[in-house]
Amino acid sequence: MFNKYLMHISIILILIFMVCEISTYSYSSQDPVFKLVIHGGAGVILRENLTAEQEQAYRDKLKEALVAGHEILKDGGKSLDAVEAVIKILEDSPLFNAGKGAVFTSSGIVELDASVMDGATLKAGSVAGLKHIKNPISLARLVMEKSPHVMMVGVGAEKFAQEQGMGFVEQKYFFTERRWKQLQEEKAKERKSQLNKKKTVFNFSTSQQEAQKFGTVGAVALDKAGNLAAGTSTGGTTNKKFGRVGDSPIIGAGTYANNQTCGVSATGHGEYFIRSVVAYDISALMEYKGLSLKEAADKVVMDKLVKLGGSGGVIAMDKQGNIATPFNSPGMYRGSIDEKGKITIGIFKDE
Amino acid sequence: MFNKYLMHISIILILIFMVCEISTYSYSSQDPVFKLVIHGGAGVILRENLTAEQEQAYRDKLKEALVAGHEILKDGGKSLDAVEAVIKILEDSPLFNAGKGAVFTSSGIVELDASVMDGATLKAGSVAGLKHIKNPISLARLVMEKSPHVMMVGVGAEKFAQEQGMGFVEQKYFFTERRWKQLQEEKAKERKSQLNKKKTVFNFSTSQQEAQKFGTVGAVALDKAGNLAAGTSTGGTTNKKFGRVGDSPIIGAGTYANNQTCGVSATGHGEYFIRSVVAYDISALMEYKGLSLKEAADKVVMDKLVKLGGSGGVIAMDKQGNIATPFNSPGMYRGSIDEKGKITIGIFKDE
Repeated sequence: MFNKYLMHISIILILIFMVCEISTYSYSSQDPVFKLVIHGGAGVILRENLTAEQEQAYRDKLKEALVAGHEILKDGGKSLDAVEAVIKILEDSPLFNAGKGAVFTSSGIVELDASVMDGATLKAGSVAGLKHIKNPISLARLVMEKSPHVMMVGVGAEKFAQEQGMGFVEQKYFFTERRWKQLQEEKAKERKSQLNKKKTVFNFSTSQQEAQKFGTVGAVALDKAGNLAAGTSTGGTTNKKFGRVGDSPIIGAGTYANNQTCGVSATGHGEYFIRSVVAYDISALMEYKGLSLKEAADKVVMDKLVKLGGSGGVIAMDKQGNIATPFNSPGMYRGSIDEKGKITIGIFKDE
Repeated sequence: MFNKYLMHISIILILIFMVCEISTYSYSSQDPVFKLVIHGGAGVILRENLTAEQEQAYRDKLKEALVAGHEILKDGGKSLDAVEAVIKILEDSPLFNAGKGAVFTSSGIVELDASVMDGATLKAGSVAGLKHIKNPISLARLVMEKSPHVMMVGVGAEKFAQEQGMGFVEQKYFFTERRWKQLQEEKAKERKSQLNKKKTVFNFSTSQQEAQKFGTVGAVALDKAGNLAAGTSTGGTTNKKFGRVGDSPIIGAGTYANNQTCGVSATGHGEYFIRSVVAYDISALMEYKGLSLKEAADKVVMDKLVKLGGSGGVIAMDKQGNIATPFNSPGMYRGSIDEKGKITIGIFKDE
């Protein structure tokens, strides 16, 4: 009799233990999803053009940014904070065409653009043509949060930065030997191409068009509260002229975020991305046609953009934390990190 | 017998006559559709604020622009030509906030933005922050047709204009007593509002926000070849600061055209129009959800924008020549002209 009781109690205890285990397990699987996906630009990025050390440097920096963003999200931080922090790290690196690593314009200076969007409120901020701002993404966020405007450009935008107490950097901060060499190469190609052509009033050299490097950095984050945010920052294209602005500071083209659908940051031949309203088009295909994130992103990047002739890619995440990173160029620096800290990084097409 | 023949011949003649009539009728109904719709801005436009003379001046200028555009389309001209010609007329008038009639920035100067899009090719051109260009719409078209870029801003854009042989005007060309007075009024309101507020590092006065006049001009045309084109031009908002850019030069927000769906030119509180990607959203609702032009334009302007708090309106036309001109503000200067030269003009809500 006593043995029977003992057996019953043992079975009950085992059952209680199992229930506890199951509930613990189901609790962790129902933990809020929080994820981060980033890019460091798309373009003609081939294995043969990168040394092992260079490749490792890119992978290390992408990892550093992902881990920093993950820490913020893990601690319950906002997706906007993660996006800004991550893009600042990429802006501060000389590896990517944004902030410190920005390419030179035709006049030998640096002009920076950036934008950010909050998927919870559909608020957005955007800046273009900055010459003295170390972290354009932070100024884009200030425009969004501290002004009634969405977009500010040039000297005016920097005046706003000053009134907001943001420090300035001299142009020399942005000088890197590598980018200066790229500019000289572009200018040499341009001269050669112009010599080969008959006199024209005005001419954009083919080399300049070919040289579009699509250098951009961007991030999309989903936080524990279920809010999506997206941001993009760039130095534009080497040897750019005439105050050219690409898609990075254009809400709907280079950046878009909406909690109902997805967050998107684009990188590519900006002109095609503006004409195709790339970032918002992915959102619209999900909202109006019921496509999944992957279907929508693939449709826009691998079909519509290809037909129009636009090269590049996007990183995108939906409200469930699904991620898509399609690109139609040879390569795209990209990476993501999930709730468990699992990191995925890619550069080339075959990975 | 002879009478019977006569009767038969008469009946045959009558039938031939009827068939001819019907075929004539059906021929004319199958003539290519060509139409034009324009706007001169939306906002707090009320009967009590306009004298009879002022109202007549607006109606006359809208009519003049419509007739000029109609002549181009009637002669088989391109929708792009009609859009440019019509917007130039509105830019050259002191009545509208674009070109000659542009409002002053906080610094007491004029800064102009414009954009244009070709529905046949999805090519687009856009300019922002111009200070010396009489007709920004023409420079936007040059950017589209003579450069590999879509958007150029500030001094760079004007350098491109110069290389293209476009003449410059001095800032004094844009001076109008009326706009100068408006700026002084805004500045007085701003001072008053700042005095009433505790010390803040930075403050946008409520008066400034209220004063958004949504002054813009725009046109959408469908030509005999079935091509849609859209364009928009603006001086921005009175007392604007910090290089603020609104939706007018943003492809997808202020302007969009696609032969598969529609052409759109928007006018309103630009920040909301950028965040809502207004012009492209109308196109997306038609393409992806199968809405009619009217349903799509109403959904965006009268529902989605209202929910977000964005005031203003759009003019839109689909490839069949259907026209929609919804606005959620008290008034919008607008007009259209059809193949037969029939003109419709409206200013207030109740017409």
